[in-house]
Amino acid sequence: MSNTPSSTPAGSGEFRALAEAIHAFVAEREWQPFHDPKNLAMAVAVEAAELMEHFRWCSSEQSRAVLADPRARPEIEHEVADVLILLIEFCSIAGIDPAAAVRAKLQLNAQRYPVALSKGHSRKYNDLQRPDSTTG
Amino acid sequence: MSNTPSSTPAGSGEFRALAEAIHAFVAEREWQPFHDPKNLAMAVAVEAAELMEHFRWCSSEQSRAVLADPRARPEIEHEVADVLILLIEFCSIAGIDPAAAVRAKLQLNAQRYPVALSKGHSRKYNDLQRPDSTTG
Amino acid sequence: MSNTPSSTPAGSGEFRALAEAIHAFVAEREWQPFHDPKNLAMAVAVEAAELMEHFRWCSSEQSRAVLADPRARPEIEHEVADVLILLIEFCSIAGIDPAAAVRAKLQLNAQRYPVALSKGHSRKYNDLQRPDSTTG
Amino acid sequence: MSNTPSSTPAGSGEFRALAEAIHAFVAEREWQPFHDPKNLAMAVAVEAAELMEHFRWCSSEQSRAVLADPRARPEIEHEVADVLILLIEFCSIAGIDPAAAVRAKLQLNAQRYPVALSKGHSRKYNDLQRPDSTTG
Repeated sequence: MSNTPSSTPAGSGEFRALAEAIHAFVAEREWQPFHDPKNLAMAVAVEAAELMEHFRWCSSEQSRAVLADPRARPEIEHEVADVLILLIEFCSIAGIDPAAAVRAKLQLNAQRYPVALSKGHSRKYNDLQRPDSTTG
Repeated sequence: MSNTPSSTPAGSGEFRALAEAIHAFVAEREWQPFHDPKNLAMAVAVEAAELMEHFRWCSSEQSRAVLADPRARPEIEHEVADVLILLIEFCSIAGIDPAAAVRAKLQLNAQRYPVALSKGHSRKYNDLQRPDSTTG
Repeated sequence: MSNTPSSTPAGSGEFRALAEAIHAFVAEREWQPFHDPKNLAMAVAVEAAELMEHFRWCSSEQSRAVLADPRARPEIEHEVADVLILLIEFCSIAGIDPAAAVRAKLQLNAQRYPVALSKGHSRKYNDLQRPDSTTG
Repeated sequence: MSNTPSSTPAGSGEFRALAEAIHAFVAEREWQPFHDPKNLAMAVAVEAAELMEHFRWCSSEQSRAVLADPRARPEIEHEVADVLILLIEFCSIAGIDPAAAVRAKLQLNAQRYPVALSKGHSRKYNDLQRPDSTTG
């Protein structure tokens, strides 16, 4: 059946191996009915917030020390993993090849953020001064 | 120098290749100063919310159709990629091997969510009825 | 001193009373140094995700029942309060009058979402078919 | 009918006035079917992330300057308003009195964060050293 959720992880190599491990975990527990795109996108955002929570009250400089804190570090690794697990599962459901999506987006970003215009600052692409810009 | 941000992506295979491509992209634009753990965790959460935005007002059932919408689909692929790019970059900065973190978390989840107790429902592990539970 | 954080809550009435109670709570604990706009915006997003977490795996229809669950309900009320506390504190720091901001945004939304074009669907304002639209 | 969505905003004063204005806006556009607790919690989180986006790459110190930026400021006010609008609407749907919820949570926080244990640092309440703590 073609649209059984999570039945055919897209992608290859490491991502595919992880997607299959996640798929087996989900299937054993019969959790597929909960794993529609809406719920998975919410779950990714919930886990991303849990990762962020560790850095909520520290400064950017202090945030490197948080990573080295022996109590926080394993939790941070688990939060990273949770985001990744749910994102890979989202990709399986959606038929998205995660590594291919990253490569395509890096190419788009290379056009949006030409080195000459982007160096050393963090302005968004639609705020960059371009030679052909009407706001230039 | 060992703690130059983003200098030594952890992990191997596909993740390492992506981490290196991201690192080169960031280095060319001299964006390393912005990429501390706090900022990257925020950025992951921002992109996760942009992914979620596509599914905000639809039902879970409709969310599969959203994925098939020719206008929404490429945007969804880009949002997935943005989350993944920033998460891989976070891992590079933090010295976390993403695939190893996923495998370790799946092992922990297998203990937290024994098949017999977890089948077919979505209760959180600390709400599962266990034989040895004092609330059982 | 003019830029003491949180010293002059904007707004009036109920919002001002809450802003002052929050301000006193923060000042007693000497937490002002943590309450810059960046940290508060992160904290609002963290609490918003905790509110969302309660509805992650249920359907839209089931989400009304979640609200009535005697275990979930008090937690949901606390999460709502956490978002509101941090948002009001953000407004105090930023000199934003929350109720005035809401009224101004409702006016803008009324322009962006004319009743005739918006009735019964959830398209974003830049996707609405307008008589003067070049994409119409 | 008692459980018509959004029909009876809880609360009083300013919050009630805003809840009624939001309710009228929603009703005119027949958007009530989209406004279940799950969708509204997602929408709150999406808007919270849009607020946060303005502070993603700046430092905590720079974030005060972002607030003063004439291009960013009106957008930040709109994002604050969007979070608040959706949170007030969530409260209307859920029968939560927002101001009462804030006062109840501040009382709970006062117990969780006694001044003597909380002054000048940002540790979470379950990490505070208490005289009666078994981990003390």
